[in-house]
Amino acid sequence: MANSFGKSFQISTWGESHGGSIGVTIDGCPPGIEVNEAMLQHDLDRRKPGQSKITTQRKESDEAKIVSGIWEGKTTGTPIAIYVSNTDARPQAYDEMKEKFRPSHADYTYQSKFGIRNHEGGGRSSARETIGRVAAGAIAKQILHKWNGVEIRAYISSIYNVELPNSAFIDFPSEEQVESNIVRCPDPEIAEKMIDVIKQARSDGDSVGGVITCRIRNFKPGLGEPVFDRFEADLAKAMLSLPATKGFEIGSGFCSTFLKGSEHNDVFYTDDEGNVKTRTNHSGGVQGGITNGEEVYFRVAFKPTATILKPQETLNKEHEATELIGRGRHDPCVVPRAVVIVEAMAALVAVDHLLRDHGQNHLFG
Amino acid sequence: MANSFGKSFQISTWGESHGGSIGVTIDGCPPGIEVNEAMLQHDLDRRKPGQSKITTQRKESDEAKIVSGIWEGKTTGTPIAIYVSNTDARPQAYDEMKEKFRPSHADYTYQSKFGIRNHEGGGRSSARETIGRVAAGAIAKQILHKWNGVEIRAYISSIYNVELPNSAFIDFPSEEQVESNIVRCPDPEIAEKMIDVIKQARSDGDSVGGVITCRIRNFKPGLGEPVFDRFEADLAKAMLSLPATKGFEIGSGFCSTFLKGSEHNDVFYTDDEGNVKTRTNHSGGVQGGITNGEEVYFRVAFKPTATILKPQETLNKEHEATELIGRGRHDPCVVPRAVVIVEAMAALVAVDHLLRDHGQNHLFG
Amino acid sequence: MANSFGKSFQISTWGESHGGSIGVTIDGCPPGIEVNEAMLQHDLDRRKPGQSKITTQRKESDEAKIVSGIWEGKTTGTPIAIYVSNTDARPQAYDEMKEKFRPSHADYTYQSKFGIRNHEGGGRSSARETIGRVAAGAIAKQILHKWNGVEIRAYISSIYNVELPNSAFIDFPSEEQVESNIVRCPDPEIAEKMIDVIKQARSDGDSVGGVITCRIRNFKPGLGEPVFDRFEADLAKAMLSLPATKGFEIGSGFCSTFLKGSEHNDVFYTDDEGNVKTRTNHSGGVQGGITNGEEVYFRVAFKPTATILKPQETLNKEHEATELIGRGRHDPCVVPRAVVIVEAMAALVAVDHLLRDHGQNHLFG
Amino acid sequence: MANSFGKSFQISTWGESHGGSIGVTIDGCPPGIEVNEAMLQHDLDRRKPGQSKITTQRKESDEAKIVSGIWEGKTTGTPIAIYVSNTDARPQAYDEMKEKFRPSHADYTYQSKFGIRNHEGGGRSSARETIGRVAAGAIAKQILHKWNGVEIRAYISSIYNVELPNSAFIDFPSEEQVESNIVRCPDPEIAEKMIDVIKQARSDGDSVGGVITCRIRNFKPGLGEPVFDRFEADLAKAMLSLPATKGFEIGSGFCSTFLKGSEHNDVFYTDDEGNVKTRTNHSGGVQGGITNGEEVYFRVAFKPTATILKPQETLNKEHEATELIGRGRHDPCVVPRAVVIVEAMAALVAVDHLLRDHGQNHLFG
Repeated sequence: MANSFGKSFQISTWGESHGGSIGVTIDGCPPGIEVNEAMLQHDLDRRKPGQSKITTQRKESDEAKIVSGIWEGKTTGTPIAIYVSNTDARPQAYDEMKEKFRPSHADYTYQSKFGIRNHEGGGRSSARETIGRVAAGAIAKQILHKWNGVEIRAYISSIYNVELPNSAFIDFPSEEQVESNIVRCPDPEIAEKMIDVIKQARSDGDSVGGVITCRIRNFKPGLGEPVFDRFEADLAKAMLSLPATKGFEIGSGFCSTFLKGSEHNDVFYTDDEGNVKTRTNHSGGVQGGITNGEEVYFRVAFKPTATILKPQETLNKEHEATELIGRGRHDPCVVPRAVVIVEAMAALVAVDHLLRDHGQNHLFG
Repeated sequence: MANSFGKSFQISTWGESHGGSIGVTIDGCPPGIEVNEAMLQHDLDRRKPGQSKITTQRKESDEAKIVSGIWEGKTTGTPIAIYVSNTDARPQAYDEMKEKFRPSHADYTYQSKFGIRNHEGGGRSSARETIGRVAAGAIAKQILHKWNGVEIRAYISSIYNVELPNSAFIDFPSEEQVESNIVRCPDPEIAEKMIDVIKQARSDGDSVGGVITCRIRNFKPGLGEPVFDRFEADLAKAMLSLPATKGFEIGSGFCSTFLKGSEHNDVFYTDDEGNVKTRTNHSGGVQGGITNGEEVYFRVAFKPTATILKPQETLNKEHEATELIGRGRHDPCVVPRAVVIVEAMAALVAVDHLLRDHGQNHLFG
Repeated sequence: MANSFGKSFQISTWGESHGGSIGVTIDGCPPGIEVNEAMLQHDLDRRKPGQSKITTQRKESDEAKIVSGIWEGKTTGTPIAIYVSNTDARPQAYDEMKEKFRPSHADYTYQSKFGIRNHEGGGRSSARETIGRVAAGAIAKQILHKWNGVEIRAYISSIYNVELPNSAFIDFPSEEQVESNIVRCPDPEIAEKMIDVIKQARSDGDSVGGVITCRIRNFKPGLGEPVFDRFEADLAKAMLSLPATKGFEIGSGFCSTFLKGSEHNDVFYTDDEGNVKTRTNHSGGVQGGITNGEEVYFRVAFKPTATILKPQETLNKEHEATELIGRGRHDPCVVPRAVVIVEAMAALVAVDHLLRDHGQNHLFG
Repeated sequence: MANSFGKSFQISTWGESHGGSIGVTIDGCPPGIEVNEAMLQHDLDRRKPGQSKITTQRKESDEAKIVSGIWEGKTTGTPIAIYVSNTDARPQAYDEMKEKFRPSHADYTYQSKFGIRNHEGGGRSSARETIGRVAAGAIAKQILHKWNGVEIRAYISSIYNVELPNSAFIDFPSEEQVESNIVRCPDPEIAEKMIDVIKQARSDGDSVGGVITCRIRNFKPGLGEPVFDRFEADLAKAMLSLPATKGFEIGSGFCSTFLKGSEHNDVFYTDDEGNVKTRTNHSGGVQGGITNGEEVYFRVAFKPTATILKPQETLNKEHEATELIGRGRHDPCVVPRAVVIVEAMAALVAVDHLLRDHGQNHLFG
């Protein structure tokens, strides 16, 4: 049982890929926040399938209904419930999955753990579950923006072997720049190469993964709850709770091990306005588990999608050898659609920590 | 506030580097487990400073006292409390820290968050806090061993630019092999090179970081609580909650992005005894957030220690520019001592998930 | 923020009296349980308004839709989401509440806490919120019955000054007996007197309260988690979390203070089948916070409903004196409808403790 | 597992009656609070045995040591750890308990649940466990006093058949008045009668129970977290988590059922200073689960102590009939010593709710 995330701003998601609907509740949202529903729908649209030639052709409108917790356009401090109907379910497309375990999917492990599973569309392990996260994240972003103008921006920094160099140190891109191409890489030339790689994977019936870089600016110092709920620890958990993720780095990450302490330490100074700053930011905006006011940045690795259109050996429910022949709708690369999901999870962690520090009802005085 | 970890097997640590003592309580330990106190002390000894020439010369006996929850050698199901006295505290050594923020330490962020801090030895942010984790982890290991012979082995896979290749795929080393050299790398030749790098850092008054690989075998399928408390998500959080960690990878990690789906997928088969297995293990023993019975393996990056013996620019409490001159005891590389801490955190995550599945009182029938 | 209840079998309710719908999610339900939806609807029907002449005439069909977590009639171990549409909302009936604080209602305190409130029908503080509890409780009852044939029976033991003597010591009534009259008192003669009292209150435009007795049988010893989550402590919290409750007693309750230790102690003996029993049961089936296998029984006091049809002095939102004239639908006594809610909360506490002991996935081997 | 209480100001107790020590940690205490250790010790002294002729003659110094979380007299926001050594343990006095289940004690239920128990002095179920609650409660009181001058006062309102009439409506007594006699009833004449009843029970080798009334004043409106963590629900749980408690009432309690709505409703008005007040306070300071600024008052029933000096039938561990002959130290009435424990639990609930509303680090701006 673990369908809730967050301690003070707590979201709970429910629903399967092929049930009638899928949704989320948010418990602990501060009262009196004006919620822009168009921005919420905008984020859901960025997540939904069928947006472009490089994603799956499943067509879902993914239209959100907010059914409680908002009154005359503002949050009331009571639970916000949001749901989205599943419209393009094709249960019969999954008949093969009923009998066979798809390699590197959750079929076998769900069956082992629960002794029963809803095989249609992956059931609860489907990426459709992230709809609730994105909807809640969209509200979290609005709270962060109101609090201190906090901005969160995620974008693709690599797809397969095509990489955006120094991805965390380019100018902080606008959302428009990120959205200017279907792969969501702020560098248009590199984006073209990434798109080519994905198209090739599609025509091969294969799949590719990649890396998302995410940055948060305008934080104040003081968010993070050591020793266990360090800000970066909760970010790491949030990211690894997403389907298909295999790695997380904060700040200098694994590369930190190639620097010496004298090179890695972030020296403090005071800027012209008297703010405490650091000359470098290898820490990634977090020291001792608490934000220091510098930009928070991190990277998340997504493996290539498990669903491919090539025949694969596998086992059936009786544990006999069989072959699985992928067919139907196929998403050769989920990473571009995951950009908004990474932003959502980052926003959820940030608001949760904000409310742990300030309380639900006294964030805005 | 976040000094507890785990939902069903919950540890809470308390204490500062220079208070009279430091400790941990464990809530939810199954009753009737024989606790081998020598094994617990053995792990604390592996963690303690002053073990060898390459670590800090702070001398602590780190002798554990178990003051509740054990009755005639067995756990009773009630809270286990363990503490260790601080004996080698030298408060005067920290006078400079009272006034100055050490770069890349937690001094500034604790001051920002709480408006007050115990500066001696880093107070609560000191690595001495991990004593409680190691003590609790030693009990967790004994539960795992009793349950299904589970073994957890961590070791150094890189220090600065010296690397153990294919670190997760060497033969599963014994603890003796890991402990056969002071750097805790199972390959003796590479260990020598790592030791040289650390000695050089020490003589330079500088520091280096590295990577720890950790492996868990003899798991059964079924541990992990999707969608948020996936097994790897809780591992990621556990590791990023350790001081000085900057990155986490499960299974193929960031390298997964250089494979295609057809290469990355782990094909199922049945072994001679009828067990479901996978031919490769890019997943790292976890699919859909749930263990599949294969070996779980992961890597953790530790940055170079922030404390160095070179002069550094910084700010004092009044935010004025000043210089910090490191002196006194100095640990050029904490990673070898972190090996047992990584094992402890892995054991804590594993037992917590085990009890979430089985309950506190029915694990052993 | 506190819209979740339970640690291992956790329910979260959402929705307001006059939003489009109201609902609940259940996280942690064991997999493989056959859910009888008719029994769930039956309990909702027992709770709903407009059942008889002595309750409010608000007409709601309160038809439950289960939208996730059930697959081919069985639970899957994933979140169960249930909702009910609000059909008989009459927002205009609440215009007066927008401006005036109803005495002994939550209008003033919600306004004080959140600075905003949905005034229609009491918003989140409406008793309609208990729909989700009843729906979840109906599933909890089915789990308890499957586990050990556990039966939970609540009934009215007093309305105003009409009392059922020795209410906890009459023969364990069947649900049919309880449901045989509209006030839900298993003694038909006393029930008639209670109904008269309620009718009188209705014709006076006034209201009355009462006491519900609840009993649980076929428990095994061992449920309850001292020292804080004692079985009776969680029951007390569950009952006091219901609207209009003012008191809770377990076993001998307040009357225990009129006995001496030698009279109150429950002497152990062994019955013919070798089971450990107690000759009396002043403990109410719980000793040291843990069930001992005897019948658990407790009593809950409900104050008279705050909504009455008499003019009352009060304040408006500007804190000026004004008069509130009750009108419209009026429920002179909510206690008969609360019988099924008390059963539901008792079932939720019991299943939660059962799963804390046994784990989510190993309750039925 | 449930040795923690509170969500934002969380205490965890550990230790058994006859282990070397017993203690508590507090996680989430706001930083910068001056802690008066003498007041903490004062409360422990009010709880400790052997204070007067009417309590047990066990002699314990119960001297508290604060070993972390306080720095130069002030809280630092990190975990506060406090422990007390057990000095007057007489393990041999409990040899009989090893074999026999004491009636209405926790011996049988602990054995059933855990399959093992520390029988000495009741082990974990001993009232010594409340030491940690009282120590933490003393700090909570200091926070409440600093926040808004909140005062919490508990006192005895009945012992066996001697009652203080209208106990919640007498003038708010000073601590001096309560402490002016050994039974802790603010009315000296009634106190004398109560003492006589207890003396009689002692000379009979028997025991008596009683009721404690507790009142909290100077609260602001707005504390309480509906729908489940209503202020009174958390109070009820806190009180029923204490050993020997059987009932809880908030405000009008069970007597509310003898009033009609028109009599029970608390009419709002504005006092001379413009504060919103209610003319009566049947609600007990809480409406809709949230404090309304009126005095919070509640009553708690304690059964007669289970330990008596008369022979009692019982069973041994093999479930064979036997006789238990009480001897040794005997506490004919624990209720006077429970007064400070009730205050402590009330303070813990109040601070927890305060911090849930305001956050750990922004309570005092």
